[in-house]
Amino acid sequence: MNNALCRMTGCDFPLFAFSHCRDVVVAVSKAGGFGVLGAARFSPEQLELELQWIDEHVDGRPYGVDVLVPETVDPRVAGLSDGTSRAAQISDEHRRFVSELLTSHGVAMDPEEAVSTQGNGITPENGAALMEVAFRHPIRLIANALGIAPPAMIEQGKARGIPVAALVGAKEHALRQAAAGVDIIVAQGGEAGGHCGEVSTLVLVPEVVRALAGAGHDIPVLAAGGIMTGGQMAAMMATGAQGAWTGSVWLATAESETSEAFRAGMIAARSRDTVRSRSRTGKPARQLRSAWHAAWDGQDSPGALPMPLMGMVSEPAFARIERSVAAGNEDARELVSYFVGQGVGLVEAERSARAVVQDFRAEFAEAVSGLADMIGED
Amino acid sequence: MNNALCRMTGCDFPLFAFSHCRDVVVAVSKAGGFGVLGAARFSPEQLELELQWIDEHVDGRPYGVDVLVPETVDPRVAGLSDGTSRAAQISDEHRRFVSELLTSHGVAMDPEEAVSTQGNGITPENGAALMEVAFRHPIRLIANALGIAPPAMIEQGKARGIPVAALVGAKEHALRQAAAGVDIIVAQGGEAGGHCGEVSTLVLVPEVVRALAGAGHDIPVLAAGGIMTGGQMAAMMATGAQGAWTGSVWLATAESETSEAFRAGMIAARSRDTVRSRSRTGKPARQLRSAWHAAWDGQDSPGALPMPLMGMVSEPAFARIERSVAAGNEDARELVSYFVGQGVGLVEAERSARAVVQDFRAEFAEAVSGLADMIGED
Repeated sequence: MNNALCRMTGCDFPLFAFSHCRDVVVAVSKAGGFGVLGAARFSPEQLELELQWIDEHVDGRPYGVDVLVPETVDPRVAGLSDGTSRAAQISDEHRRFVSELLTSHGVAMDPEEAVSTQGNGITPENGAALMEVAFRHPIRLIANALGIAPPAMIEQGKARGIPVAALVGAKEHALRQAAAGVDIIVAQGGEAGGHCGEVSTLVLVPEVVRALAGAGHDIPVLAAGGIMTGGQMAAMMATGAQGAWTGSVWLATAESETSEAFRAGMIAARSRDTVRSRSRTGKPARQLRSAWHAAWDGQDSPGALPMPLMGMVSEPAFARIERSVAAGNEDARELVSYFVGQGVGLVEAERSARAVVQDFRAEFAEAVSGLADMIGED
Repeated sequence: MNNALCRMTGCDFPLFAFSHCRDVVVAVSKAGGFGVLGAARFSPEQLELELQWIDEHVDGRPYGVDVLVPETVDPRVAGLSDGTSRAAQISDEHRRFVSELLTSHGVAMDPEEAVSTQGNGITPENGAALMEVAFRHPIRLIANALGIAPPAMIEQGKARGIPVAALVGAKEHALRQAAAGVDIIVAQGGEAGGHCGEVSTLVLVPEVVRALAGAGHDIPVLAAGGIMTGGQMAAMMATGAQGAWTGSVWLATAESETSEAFRAGMIAARSRDTVRSRSRTGKPARQLRSAWHAAWDGQDSPGALPMPLMGMVSEPAFARIERSVAAGNEDARELVSYFVGQGVGLVEAERSARAVVQDFRAEFAEAVSGLADMIGED
């Protein structure tokens, strides 16, 4: 396809696949799409190994890296730059709460062990270190979320000719990112999995496209949030997007990092089975609804902690939950969850990542010719 | 355009315009779209007059009527069939709360006068009476929301050859409506103005289309929620809808029943300036966010009342607020609100209803040819 976004990033078909799994990234890029490795949960050393593997397997096809450099840090954790001092901020009440929640589902967890000093790595320091690693590889895109892309990312992107993409959930944020110098805006609607705003993709994308054009910014927009099919991709391109940014659809692929228990949950889930909650990372993020959210968002909850403290509680808990389910504890399935968007209601079976790209291409072509026929018959 | 929905309803361009204003209904139908008069707030006598006027002015073009026959009635009001006995259920605390809220914005309201025995008319009895009136006119569609269309509507529709449409916010509801015999499903996403669910239009429409086909129902789907442009209409038709059902976009037309204060609010609003709240009708409905919602959904609120009691409090209040603004009380503008979807962020100016239809047609054609060109350049 011949649009500015394809020329800028080198892909054939502007289907951007965000995944924490290197196999998905490689499979998508080799199938003509554009794989983007979600790096936020890696240490810099791990990311280096992941990118080396991708470079060896991607056959020179373009790929990108997504980091999370939070623009703002909650005052409760500002100045605490190491895991131990952060962990000390987590109250006994929170430790007991998670311990009791897991224990009530047959997952043993001592309150003393309930907190990791590692967390999910979403800190400005780790984000900056990951960015440095990414720029040492032949990436064709670097993306950021949770605020304005840091000046160092924009400067290095420009110096190296690597487009910088930024995820936004509101028109005002898109205009701020454009003014800061980002090259691509990913307009992500509130139905998206992970961190998201409240405006729907169908409204947000044309609103952002119009606002950028009105302010004189010639910046391509990717549509994100709820897109699981080529028909939806064509739809959002009809509203002015130059391509689609997708995440949830890859979680149900054979290559994905997700557990069997979670993939089974995805296939069973309807679109109404997600929830936007602070209870996994500390910022509002859409997830598969489970007993975890009923507890943390319920009346007896001690309340979600700020980022990154919430992840230091939730990540070890979910690791235990997954292990417990894998060991045969069916009660723990009620707690199983992961970041996923409302599009989960469109997931019917596990496919390979390559098959997903092929399906998107076919559905896209079918949607466009269906529309053209409708006009023709007028 | 030649699809099943156009053949079924007799329109040229499958743009369905829900409006409480007969002028909008007539203007849209005469411009090749399909006007649908929202009748729920009328008495049967008023509706009769409105439809006589439409019949005299619509030049034989097809139009429809939308009634609200709630499928379920809150136990707190079940069995109370007259306004006076319903009004007696509204506590002094609720009366004082609305009186104090209005007074604090310079709108005088005695707690004794805070409740109307009329309300917004959304009761099963009024809905059934409105339906009888509608069927006496040459309508080409009757639509219902808030649950399964009543058997009498489906039977009379079939007997008279009038398609029955039902609004749904979830796949399961679509399947129930189809099984009950409705002819058209309006799949309305959570970004819509008025009563709405939580799943976005972009996800809900393909989910509903797929579920209906999977269950063997050959029923056309209209996409609703957030659609303000022909590009968005084309978008949702790329996901399997046969047309668009729209509401908010008509509120900013010159013909609309809305006040100058509300239209000014619409033009100023961003997509984030709406809220889904029970505080106007008693059921979750999306509205322009104002000081009304901050109060009713806030910590000191006595809580929203069930339908139809909430409307018996809110409708007289909003009537006073509008009058107060019109009389020059700028403080009362902070309370001004009305049902509107997130698409309000795409409203930039007041237009005529006819111009809106023409813009939709042009934007639709442009979106489709843009997509076709993109494929052609592959």
